Amino acid sequence: VLGRKEISSAVIKRLPRYYRYLDELQSEGVERISSGDLSRKMNVTASQIRQDLNNFGGFGQQGYGYNVKNLFVEIGKILGVDRTHPMIVIGGGNMGRALSNYSNFRKRGFDIIGIFDVDPSIIGKEVNGIKVQHLKDVDNFVKLHQVEIAALAVPKTVAVEIAEHLASLGIRAFWNFAHIDLELGDDVVVENVHLSESLMQLSYRMLQNEESK
Amino acid sequence: VLGRKEISSAVIKRLPRYYRYLDELQSEGVERISSGDLSRKMNVTASQIRQDLNNFGGFGQQGYGYNVKNLFVEIGKILGVDRTHPMIVIGGGNMGRALSNYSNFRKRGFDIIGIFDVDPSIIGKEVNGIKVQHLKDVDNFVKLHQVEIAALAVPKTVAVEIAEHLASLGIRAFWNFAHIDLELGDDVVVENVHLSESLMQLSYRMLQNEESK
Repeated sequence: VLGRKEISSAVIKRLPRYYRYLDELQSEGVERISSGDLSRKMNVTASQIRQDLNNFGGFGQQGYGYNVKNLFVEIGKILGVDRTHPMIVIGGGNMGRALSNYSNFRKRGFDIIGIFDVDPSIIGKEVNGIKVQHLKDVDNFVKLHQVEIAALAVPKTVAVEIAEHLASLGIRAFWNFAHIDLELGDDVVVENVHLSESLMQLSYRMLQNEESK
Repeated sequence: VLGRKEISSAVIKRLPRYYRYLDELQSEGVERISSGDLSRKMNVTASQIRQDLNNFGGFGQQGYGYNVKNLFVEIGKILGVDRTHPMIVIGGGNMGRALSNYSNFRKRGFDIIGIFDVDPSIIGKEVNGIKVQHLKDVDNFVKLHQVEIAALAVPKTVAVEIAEHLASLGIRAFWNFAHIDLELGDDVVVENVHLSESLMQLSYRMLQNEESK
């Protein structure tokens, strides 16, 4: 994909949202859309949309709009969701089960193939058709299956140790729900979902909103 | 708090992380810390730390470092976590239960006081000591209790309708896990946790990492 290296992280953060809207437009049977119409739908400026999408070689034609399907496919390639990413979930508690039950992930190529825990009351139970295994069996599992991503839905007290172990087994991408920073080296990517921090931002914005009245 | 209006959203996004590290330092009994030591611990530059924290009136003294407790308290005030925020959770499925079980939220002042669903197999069950109620009873609940925040852990097909109804009842802050954008007006704040989008960013960064080899 042309010019990928220069794309700012702000643009990258917006891409999944474009992807979602284009997916909806496709399912509504829309074939082309102008930046103006997309802008009203997404509640961002048309110039922002043009700027963002120009990063990927200008899928739009002046006065003619964007080809919804092409743009959807191209953004999917950029995001890497045009391929399958085998994933394991560590932690079979509520959060691990919530993640394992999201049908939307599989639709996007994120294919949960294993769930692991250490709690005997959870091991052996089925979640979305997958039997929860003991964490001690993860080594063998990773040897037998190609695993790209590990989702960590475990307490922060054990997250670092588990992540380091999984990285030593060759897993190079971590989706981390534990409220702690993981430092696993430059060849490993970590995406954090820190729920407490998200809540604090909400409360900050509540305060701001009250004060601006 | 001085100068709050001018604080950039990038700084605001970093504040919860400072708050977490300061909390840990406190529990380790650390009373003062230099920007250099904090920088090594947090893996950001010392000048970034100084710049960020100078937004709040300079809690540090040259050559003497930051008073951990003061800084923790002040950032807590800025984030609004020095007070209690009564919260309800809509959706008693895996995600709703995961949120309701996080003990860390209550520690930060986010106090879950009600859980609602429409599924008869879930209603009446206890989650973290709270009995799940029928969603039709939420109107009365909101009239009887002060509710600041609604967490939406419901399918996106019903999220908009529920959010608009709750907003009409006076709730002004939404923590939205449904994969859809909510437009509830300027006096309502919405913080989205879009898990699919977070996964797509992870897969984008995996691709980048592979290509840079």
